[in-house]
Amino acid sequence: MELNPGFTGATLDRADALRANDEKLAAARADPRARLLGLNGLEPLTGGDGRLFWRPMHEAAAGNELVLLGLDGGEPRFAELRLEEADSVNRSMAVMQALARLDAADAALYGGARSVIDWHYRHLFCARCGAATALFRAGWGRKCARCNTEHFPRVDPVVIMLAEFGGRVLLGRQPMFPPKFFSALAGFVEPGESLEEAVRRELFEEAGIRTGTVRYVVSQPWPFPSSLMIGCVAEVLDEAITLDTTELQDAMWVGRADVEAALAGDAAAPFVPPPPVALAHSLLRAWLAA
Amino acid sequence: MELNPGFTGATLDRADALRANDEKLAAARADPRARLLGLNGLEPLTGGDGRLFWRPMHEAAAGNELVLLGLDGGEPRFAELRLEEADSVNRSMAVMQALARLDAADAALYGGARSVIDWHYRHLFCARCGAATALFRAGWGRKCARCNTEHFPRVDPVVIMLAEFGGRVLLGRQPMFPPKFFSALAGFVEPGESLEEAVRRELFEEAGIRTGTVRYVVSQPWPFPSSLMIGCVAEVLDEAITLDTTELQDAMWVGRADVEAALAGDAAAPFVPPPPVALAHSLLRAWLAA
Repeated sequence: MELNPGFTGATLDRADALRANDEKLAAARADPRARLLGLNGLEPLTGGDGRLFWRPMHEAAAGNELVLLGLDGGEPRFAELRLEEADSVNRSMAVMQALARLDAADAALYGGARSVIDWHYRHLFCARCGAATALFRAGWGRKCARCNTEHFPRVDPVVIMLAEFGGRVLLGRQPMFPPKFFSALAGFVEPGESLEEAVRRELFEEAGIRTGTVRYVVSQPWPFPSSLMIGCVAEVLDEAITLDTTELQDAMWVGRADVEAALAGDAAAPFVPPPPVALAHSLLRAWLAA
Repeated sequence: MELNPGFTGATLDRADALRANDEKLAAARADPRARLLGLNGLEPLTGGDGRLFWRPMHEAAAGNELVLLGLDGGEPRFAELRLEEADSVNRSMAVMQALARLDAADAALYGGARSVIDWHYRHLFCARCGAATALFRAGWGRKCARCNTEHFPRVDPVVIMLAEFGGRVLLGRQPMFPPKFFSALAGFVEPGESLEEAVRRELFEEAGIRTGTVRYVVSQPWPFPSSLMIGCVAEVLDEAITLDTTELQDAMWVGRADVEAALAGDAAAPFVPPPPVALAHSLLRAWLAA
């Protein structure tokens, strides 16, 4: 089954070999086919064709740092950092509706670019000594001007899981969710844990249930701001739930017919499911298909 | 097949509910059963029983920040931050031999503690504004004293993979490896990639090969300084290799008999394999067992 999770399917060549090669990087910047990603803050600009909008290189302000996003059929693609906007850009997920109109490759390219750009905006200083940092490796790192420490973009792994018991799966809702909206439980992987251990800990912390076998299903990058969502199904040993009410407002076990109805948009379904762009949606589809 | 990767199998309860509860945290610090992890810099101290050594709480210097590692059968376990050592601690992997003598639960506890402690030592300043930060959430974050930005420990996901073709798998060696030592190819997951996309990119960058199906196998935390190793087997479409010689000195396809001989320590084996604590070792064992 092809799951095609949101923000996957980028066709851009990341061109790692160019990043540390000053000569090739300069040639890419000077290439007449080179373009800048069109953005309004962190939000994507789109052209009349509904695709990402690309600006000519000369529109970058003099002295602004550029990130090499990669090569599109050999054509260099950059993003301009506007450091004066770093603190004020809109970091909401309001952009999700605009994103839904992009094709998969454009949405994935945008997602990766947004994560890297926003990482720069939030990491202009050295976490080790507090001095200012400057872009290096074509934007895939920042280096401290004082202590020379190298810093690299963050990717924060998150486990998101369907606990499974007796042919049903566990969904939960946070207080801030829209009415009837339920999704898979999730949490950040902490230092010192395997994926499987993070799944066990989260299910016990949030729902008080003990986990047996954990099975990896599917993953996706999530650019708000820079997570790696890792989707699993966890066979659990008991269906009794002890809710951590600081994390979850409610949780419930749902069966196949409920999930099918919810994914079909049936108003009589017992819950509103996560949208297709969310990994929880792919997880539910994969569970139905298994 | 039970793989038991290195640094997994911790039995400590991370006690997330205590982290943000000042009253419970103060009670844990005052608990007569509370102990401090014994360390020399970032290296573990062990007792006569070969287990991790735990110090009484009063040995912490006044004013030093403490990290709540968790509860061991209800007994609080902390680590003391010695910020004056932050820049000078030994960050080599020389500690690996000492680690091999610890049982799995102690090695996993130590690994997670080391990652968090070292994260503090490398993140004393706010990456957003450059001001000093202070520990919060019982050591599972730092907060900026000036701009209030909250920072959380890093976990850097890394894909490590066996490319598979015609019943053989691809191993490579970096120039700094000991003689005859070969391991699985690996690389950091970047913003904007799924696990599967990272595997495809790394195999193409490092070995010039195109990947078909990617299958997740096993994961482990790796505390040098704080990676999440995610082990996969990737069916590749061609056996021709184009080495990226800036990354790899050599690469070769090895069959089952070669892997069995290497893991058995046979001097006639064509390569020296990664040690049991490394995820590449677990991956090779899983591949043989599949």
